Amino acid sequence: MTSSKDAQLPDFQPTQRTKIKRLFQRAVFDRKTVYEILDAGLLCHVGYVIEGQPYVTSTAYWRLDDRVYWHGSSVSKMLKAVEKGIDACFTVALMDGLVIARSGFHSSINYRSVVALGQAEKITGEAEKLAALEAFEGRLAPGLWADQRPVHKQELKASTVLSMKLEEVACKVRTGPPGDDEEDYDLDIWAGVVPISTVVGAPEDDPRLKAGIPQPDYLKQIKIG
Amino acid sequence: MTSSKDAQLPDFQPTQRTKIKRLFQRAVFDRKTVYEILDAGLLCHVGYVIEGQPYVTSTAYWRLDDRVYWHGSSVSKMLKAVEKGIDACFTVALMDGLVIARSGFHSSINYRSVVALGQAEKITGEAEKLAALEAFEGRLAPGLWADQRPVHKQELKASTVLSMKLEEVACKVRTGPPGDDEEDYDLDIWAGVVPISTVVGAPEDDPRLKAGIPQPDYLKQIKIG
Repeated sequence: MTSSKDAQLPDFQPTQRTKIKRLFQRAVFDRKTVYEILDAGLLCHVGYVIEGQPYVTSTAYWRLDDRVYWHGSSVSKMLKAVEKGIDACFTVALMDGLVIARSGFHSSINYRSVVALGQAEKITGEAEKLAALEAFEGRLAPGLWADQRPVHKQELKASTVLSMKLEEVACKVRTGPPGDDEEDYDLDIWAGVVPISTVVGAPEDDPRLKAGIPQPDYLKQIKIG
Repeated sequence: MTSSKDAQLPDFQPTQRTKIKRLFQRAVFDRKTVYEILDAGLLCHVGYVIEGQPYVTSTAYWRLDDRVYWHGSSVSKMLKAVEKGIDACFTVALMDGLVIARSGFHSSINYRSVVALGQAEKITGEAEKLAALEAFEGRLAPGLWADQRPVHKQELKASTVLSMKLEEVACKVRTGPPGDDEEDYDLDIWAGVVPISTVVGAPEDDPRLKAGIPQPDYLKQIKIG
């Protein structure tokens, strides 16, 4: 989701830590592409360190303007560590296909990935927290937020919502067919791309669903990947 | 892939670092389930620390007995850091569905996840490296390895293959419908699960594919998620 105030922000600039040294032709720094990837994904992987040990926790996320958000129980180990503003890494990777070359060496994966380094901030105000959660549900399916029962005060208290500003960002995209060694193109070996996609299936009613409640239209709008 | 020597290994035991404190009913420690999740996934997220900054890099992986493997260019920043045997975190997360409850608070995601803490080891022997790469291609599609042209010596040298023993492992699985507050079941709100799956599409021939080469049968066996 992008508001008008965000339209003027410049593209990302590589730093020493986000400079892509290998396969730099795959590096992307324009803000529009980064936002498109972030808006397509749903699951991120957050990296953080506790007592010297790195941890990687997967969780749902969403984007609003130049920030990514994630949330969970206030007693989550990941959230309790990251909310302190320690150095963190936010990674999203979407797989689009297996690239099968004539050699294993040139075989690859088509993907879109975003890595953001930074520190997360905890959203403390009740109204801000509610607005962030509403944005999350809006990303999932417009109409979901209005349909569900209102959030209880104690639920809001039991939830932590974090956000991280997108500042130090590396983005990589690979698309297209394999790039084989020139002499290998003449070999009698199949090569090409096997597409991979995330598919949203037909909704399954809760076995305890009250009689007479139809599946809402917004379910058809859920899109991931 | 599991060889007979691995059949007797015990289940995983939670440590202080992998004990699941929240929603412990989702915790799984039996080896069979952990292996099934790892064998279903293709993309892992590796966490590691360079100069105090955590990084999370997504990459393809595979499993053989009680080890996970990943590989890439010898000059990859991630591999160069992790091959030194520093503390790392290996995470796989598979999304199976959106769990839409009658409240946002009880909405969730159906998923399968494995987190392994440990240090990676670099595979140095040529034969061992080739065997590991063959196992990777075997996981992708049985027949692929035999079909592609043999690996060149310099390609093997330019590739790093790492493995990590599965010792300190946390595994979490959520399945099934939402669990709403008892008083909410009577509300006129839809609830249920929207399934999410990874779909392997129809293979696309390389535009430079030599005439007369059919799509090999092993492409039909590729399965992810």
